Amino acid sequence: MQIVELIHKKRDGEALSSEEIGWLVEQYTNDAIPDYQVAAWLMAVFWRGMDARETSDLTLAMAHSGEQLRVREMVVPVVDKHSTGGVGDKVTLAVAPLVAACGVAVGKMSGRGLGHTGGTVDKLESFQGLRTSLASEEFLHILQQHGIVIAGQSSQLAPADGKMYALRDVTGTVDSIPLIAASIMSKKLAIGGSHLLLDVKVGSGAFMKTVEQARELAVAMVEIGRVGGMHTVAAITAMDQPLGRAVGNVLEVVEAIAILRGEGPGDVSELCYHEAAELLVMTGKARDQAEAEDLVAAAVRGGAAVAKFAEVIAAQGGDPRQVERPELLPAAPLRRMLTAPRSGYIAAMHAERIGLASMRLGAGRFKKDDAIDHRTGFILQARVGDYCHQGDPLVEIHARNEDEAAAIQQELLRCYTWSDEAVQPGPLIYEVIHP
Amino acid sequence: MQIVELIHKKRDGEALSSEEIGWLVEQYTNDAIPDYQVAAWLMAVFWRGMDARETSDLTLAMAHSGEQLRVREMVVPVVDKHSTGGVGDKVTLAVAPLVAACGVAVGKMSGRGLGHTGGTVDKLESFQGLRTSLASEEFLHILQQHGIVIAGQSSQLAPADGKMYALRDVTGTVDSIPLIAASIMSKKLAIGGSHLLLDVKVGSGAFMKTVEQARELAVAMVEIGRVGGMHTVAAITAMDQPLGRAVGNVLEVVEAIAILRGEGPGDVSELCYHEAAELLVMTGKARDQAEAEDLVAAAVRGGAAVAKFAEVIAAQGGDPRQVERPELLPAAPLRRMLTAPRSGYIAAMHAERIGLASMRLGAGRFKKDDAIDHRTGFILQARVGDYCHQGDPLVEIHARNEDEAAAIQQELLRCYTWSDEAVQPGPLIYEVIHP
Repeated sequence: MQIVELIHKKRDGEALSSEEIGWLVEQYTNDAIPDYQVAAWLMAVFWRGMDARETSDLTLAMAHSGEQLRVREMVVPVVDKHSTGGVGDKVTLAVAPLVAACGVAVGKMSGRGLGHTGGTVDKLESFQGLRTSLASEEFLHILQQHGIVIAGQSSQLAPADGKMYALRDVTGTVDSIPLIAASIMSKKLAIGGSHLLLDVKVGSGAFMKTVEQARELAVAMVEIGRVGGMHTVAAITAMDQPLGRAVGNVLEVVEAIAILRGEGPGDVSELCYHEAAELLVMTGKARDQAEAEDLVAAAVRGGAAVAKFAEVIAAQGGDPRQVERPELLPAAPLRRMLTAPRSGYIAAMHAERIGLASMRLGAGRFKKDDAIDHRTGFILQARVGDYCHQGDPLVEIHARNEDEAAAIQQELLRCYTWSDEAVQPGPLIYEVIHP
Repeated sequence: MQIVELIHKKRDGEALSSEEIGWLVEQYTNDAIPDYQVAAWLMAVFWRGMDARETSDLTLAMAHSGEQLRVREMVVPVVDKHSTGGVGDKVTLAVAPLVAACGVAVGKMSGRGLGHTGGTVDKLESFQGLRTSLASEEFLHILQQHGIVIAGQSSQLAPADGKMYALRDVTGTVDSIPLIAASIMSKKLAIGGSHLLLDVKVGSGAFMKTVEQARELAVAMVEIGRVGGMHTVAAITAMDQPLGRAVGNVLEVVEAIAILRGEGPGDVSELCYHEAAELLVMTGKARDQAEAEDLVAAAVRGGAAVAKFAEVIAAQGGDPRQVERPELLPAAPLRRMLTAPRSGYIAAMHAERIGLASMRLGAGRFKKDDAIDHRTGFILQARVGDYCHQGDPLVEIHARNEDEAAAIQQELLRCYTWSDEAVQPGPLIYEVIHP
C-alpha cells in the first residue's frame, strides 16, 4: 500500500477501505509515514469528509493503536460521560458523583482546557494535592474501590489519536466533524466503558455553532458507539451563555458542590440531574426518566452525592474537607463587582468572549503549556432573560490584582446585549440522539 | 504572521495577500515552516485554487528565492522555450538551434524525464561526454559565446520551487493548475530570458487531458509572464499520439537532427518550424509568421541549423561528429519489427501507454534515481490516419535483449485502435494564447 495513493483517493472524493484506514493508522503510529503526508491526507479529509463506515474504521483503528483498559470487563455497567466543551461547563464534575452515588460506576478520563473552554482536569486540580495523572493500575483500582474515578487523558491510550490531534492542531484540520468524532470516540473506546453519554454543546460558546452541525457530530459519535459496542446517547445542549453562574476553576468546583447539595443555580442543576438520570435509565438502574430523577433527587437530598464527590477527591489524593467546606479552596485575592451599565433585559451573552475574558484573568490557557490560576474567574449575577436596573450587580470579577480586574471590564460589558422588551431564553436541551 | 492562519484562510476559500504568500515562501525556503504545514496548505490550494494574482505572487516569490541569472541583462533578446511534456517530444531539441541559427539567442534549462514523458536533458546526454550540469558562469559564458545553451535545471535557481515540488510529489498535490503554472514559470523567471514560448501539450500522452485544462494552464502562465515582465506566448498542441516517429533518447536525437536538415517526419517538423518562427516574430527578428518561416527554412536548407546544433553540443563537451554522422550515436543491440495484426486505418494510438512501454525498455524512469538506457525505444512506422495491411511494419522496437523486446509486444499492440473507415487525424495546434 502507498500513502500517496490513499491521499489521491481521498482527494478525489473516494472512500478508503477498512484495510487502507487500518494500515494508515498503524503506519502513522509507528512513524512509518511522515507527518507531511498525513497532513495532506487530513486536509483532503477536511475537504471531502468521510462516510460513517470510514469514520468508525478510523476510530477503531485509533482506539486499538495503544493500551486498552477494557474497564467493562472489570465493572459492569461502567459509564463514561463527555462534553464537547463550553464556558462554565461543570456538568461532568457533578454528574459523575451523582451517578456513582446511585450505584452506577463512572470511569472517566478528561482533557485540559484549551482556548475559551475549560477542562474538567483543570477544575479538579483546584483541590490541593489531587492527582489526575494516574497509571492504568491506579485508575482501575480507584474505579473498583470507589465506583468512580476521574483522571487526565493517558497518553498510552489511543496514541494514534494523540499524534494525529497534535498534527491537526497545526495544520488547520481541527474543525472536521468526522475527525472530531473519531478523536473523541477513540479515547472512549480505548477506556472501554459499557455506556457513554455525550453532551454536544451548540452556540456562541461552543465549537459547534449550529444545531445542524451539532446533530451531525452527535449522530456520527452515536453511530461509532454502535459499531464499537458501546451504548452511546448524545444530548445536544445549549451553550449560548455560560452554564450556571460560575466561570473559572475553583469557582466552578464550588458551584458543582452546590449542585450536588441541591443548592445550585436552576439551569445547570436541571441539566446535571437530567443527564445523571439519563445514565441511570441507559444502564437499566431505573426503568424510566421519572424514576431515575427520583433516585438522583434522593442522592442529593440524602447527602450521598456530595459524599461520593468527597470520596473520589480523597481517593485521588485531594483534601475531602474542601468538599465539605468549599471556603477552604483557594480564593482570588481581589473581588470587584461590575454593575449593569443600563436598565433592561439581558437579551444575549457572548459565551465565547466571556470564556476568553476569563483566560485573560489567568483561568485558561492561550498555549498548551501555559500555567493557569485556579482562583480567578467570574460569578455572573444575572442571566439571559433577567431584568437589571442600571447599577445592579452584573458580574463579580475574581482577579489576581486591580490592573487585571480593570483591564477586563470593558471587554466584559461588550459581551452583553440588552433589550427593552422581555426576552425568553432558549431551550437548554435541543434534542437527544439515541442509537 | 502564523502559518496556521494562512492554512485556515486558504482552506476557507479566501485569497492570500501578496505579503502572506511572500512570507510563506521565504519561511519555507529557510526551513522555518515545517513540511507538514506546507503540505496541508498545498492540499488546501489543490482544493480551493488560487486566483491570478495569488498565482503570480507565488511564482515571483519562488523565482526570487535563490540565485537569479538575469540573462536578458547580458544578451537581448534571449528566448526560452518550454514544453509541458509528451511522448516523442523532441521539439525543444530542434527549435533551440533553429532559432539560434536565425540569430536569436536561446538560454534554456530543462528537466529530466519522469514517468511516461521524456526530458530534454536525458535526450541531450545521448551525446558522449556532453555536460548538462553547468555552473551559472559557464551557462552564461556558453550563451554569450554561442548564442545557445541547454542545461539541466540548476538547484540554485528557485530553490523554493524545488523544495515545494518534491513535497507536492509525495502529498498528492501535483495536479493543480496554479501550482503547475507557478512551478514552471518560477524557473523561467529566475533564468530571466526576455521571451518565452510555451508548448502546452494536451491529449492522451500529456498531463493535461482536455483543451479546457490546457487553456487554463496556458492562460495562467501567460499572465504570470506578463506580471513578471517576460513576453510569453503559449501554444496548445496535440499529444494524442507520439510526436513524429521516434520515441526514446538517441532515437529522438536522430530525429531532431533530421528535422534540422529538413528530412524529418511531416507533423513534428511542421511544429518545430512553426514554433521557431513564432519566436522570431515574438522577438522582432521577423515581421510576420511568413517571413519568419522563410528565415527558418533558409537556416534548414543552408545547413546553419544543424551546424548550430553541432556547435552547442561541442560547447557543452559533446562530440559534434555525432551530429554530422548520427550513426555514431550509441545504438540498441537488438531491433525487432512489430507488424500490423490486421488491415485497416489507425484510428488512435495511446501515447501515454506507448511512453510507459518505452520506460519498460529502459528509456525512462519509474523512480527519480533510476538509470536510463539512452539507446532503447521505438520507431513508429505508421501514424493515426495511415492505412496498414496486415503484416505491414508497425513499430520497430529497439531493445537491450530479446526478452525485453518480446515482453513489450502485446502491450504495444493494445496501444492501437483500428478502423475500417478512413480516419482524419486531429489538428496539431489547437490555439495560441498571446498576452
